[in-house]
Amino acid sequence: MQIDLSTIDYFTESGSVEAVTSRTGNEADERLATVWAMLVKHLHAFAKEVDLKQGEWEAGIDFLTRTGQMCDENRQEFILLSDVLGLSMLTDAINNRELASATESTVMGPFHVKGAPELPMGANISLDGKGESCIFEGYVFDQEGNAIEGARLDVWCDNVDGYYDVQQPDIQPKWNNRGIFKTGQDGTYRFMGAKPVSYPIPHDGPVGQLLEKLGRHPNRPAHMHYIVSAPEYRTLVTHSFVDDDQWLKSDVVFGVKASLVANYEHSPDGDAKWRSPFDFILVKDTTN
Amino acid sequence: MQIDLSTIDYFTESGSVEAVTSRTGNEADERLATVWAMLVKHLHAFAKEVDLKQGEWEAGIDFLTRTGQMCDENRQEFILLSDVLGLSMLTDAINNRELASATESTVMGPFHVKGAPELPMGANISLDGKGESCIFEGYVFDQEGNAIEGARLDVWCDNVDGYYDVQQPDIQPKWNNRGIFKTGQDGTYRFMGAKPVSYPIPHDGPVGQLLEKLGRHPNRPAHMHYIVSAPEYRTLVTHSFVDDDQWLKSDVVFGVKASLVANYEHSPDGDAKWRSPFDFILVKDTTN
Repeated sequence: MQIDLSTIDYFTESGSVEAVTSRTGNEADERLATVWAMLVKHLHAFAKEVDLKQGEWEAGIDFLTRTGQMCDENRQEFILLSDVLGLSMLTDAINNRELASATESTVMGPFHVKGAPELPMGANISLDGKGESCIFEGYVFDQEGNAIEGARLDVWCDNVDGYYDVQQPDIQPKWNNRGIFKTGQDGTYRFMGAKPVSYPIPHDGPVGQLLEKLGRHPNRPAHMHYIVSAPEYRTLVTHSFVDDDQWLKSDVVFGVKASLVANYEHSPDGDAKWRSPFDFILVKDTTN
Repeated sequence: MQIDLSTIDYFTESGSVEAVTSRTGNEADERLATVWAMLVKHLHAFAKEVDLKQGEWEAGIDFLTRTGQMCDENRQEFILLSDVLGLSMLTDAINNRELASATESTVMGPFHVKGAPELPMGANISLDGKGESCIFEGYVFDQEGNAIEGARLDVWCDNVDGYYDVQQPDIQPKWNNRGIFKTGQDGTYRFMGAKPVSYPIPHDGPVGQLLEKLGRHPNRPAHMHYIVSAPEYRTLVTHSFVDDDQWLKSDVVFGVKASLVANYEHSPDGDAKWRSPFDFILVKDTTN
């Protein structure tokens, strides 16, 4: 069978986007086809605007390959890459517009672990006993100021050495600085822990090397992570930041918001060195 | 130390690009800083234009992670991804503008292996003896039509089952359908091999799943790969395509160019079933 070569639409630089996107089949999911078409459009625009060199393309392939190979069950290098690109915070912003009357969200980060132990009100999550003790407490409200009973708080933070338990499985106790709490009838929660400290994101991999080449430090200001959820409310992924941290101004992942900076007060009673009150306001889930 | 929170430039959707690119340090390499800034700009524009959902971001992280983890010494899934995105051909186009009087280039693909054996003129690279025998021959010229003596041709193709040797290390002989040849005094080359056949790119990984969801087939039209090089000439990475292939119109990686479709004639002598003449024209390297 002879092919009529004159009927072929050859790939050209100027027609590159159409050459690729026109191949998508009619059976493709409509949303996938849209996202793919936009990805091709912006990726090709990037390559054309920077006049991408062959060696730079090769370096990019190598970088992405090493980034993927750095990932395992305890390390998510692509989330780090998204974080330092500002893409994680941008996705957060896009998905949480117009919630001005509720607690603001921020990045999940790569260190959440499902299945943390459910603990009673007031329990201590600092299993290694290191660091400065702190009481974390507050209310979970709805947007009208009503207490939400039975709201679930999944909390996690680093230890005083700046590492999450999953980064040091041979050193830290399992579930160190993690726990799940539920609010009482009056919407309150309370737990003990160690005051979080600032830390560098894992920077011994491709993303760390990139940050160094960009002249950027790898540090995050100290924070406690929260996933706050309750039936019929939109799940909130956020942090509370420690208010005296030098990295608040230049969080490597751009996660800081003014409303998320929490007070740390010297505790009036003798139970703990610090006390950090922080309230949450949840939004009714209207998607169901 | 108390931090003046009013001095913090918080991350916002509208200011997202500046928030990230302003962090790049003065010590960063100028070209890296430019490429990074353009990457952030186009990546953020993509996320905003598609209104990227949190779940889609998660699916993207998962996809990139699996793509990286699919890579090993014999499999380069990120090159496949770049290929099906048209990015490989776009990079080729950007890096090879204004070479109209020379042989056109196309994608390298992921199956080149360095260190193939150097073989004498006329040697047979088909070590498994499968497929339809074919004589590949022609000239290597400069742009003035002068023969180039001692030009080096690094050639490789699939076998009749549609696999490169590195995809079937336990089945095909090592270096099957690969070899390095040098042109003689008159600029000619000649080798024996099997007529290439069309084949699907490896589609048992994340990129294959993506193609299926996009309603795209994974096939490449049959082709012989060449890297043609000579001292003082620009190295040429290209293919010659088999002229009767049904996939010429829809090569999954967009690699086909009209000038690269080679004739396959029934061989006039009894040495082989086919004969495919194909000449190369190299460009003087002006970068040194």
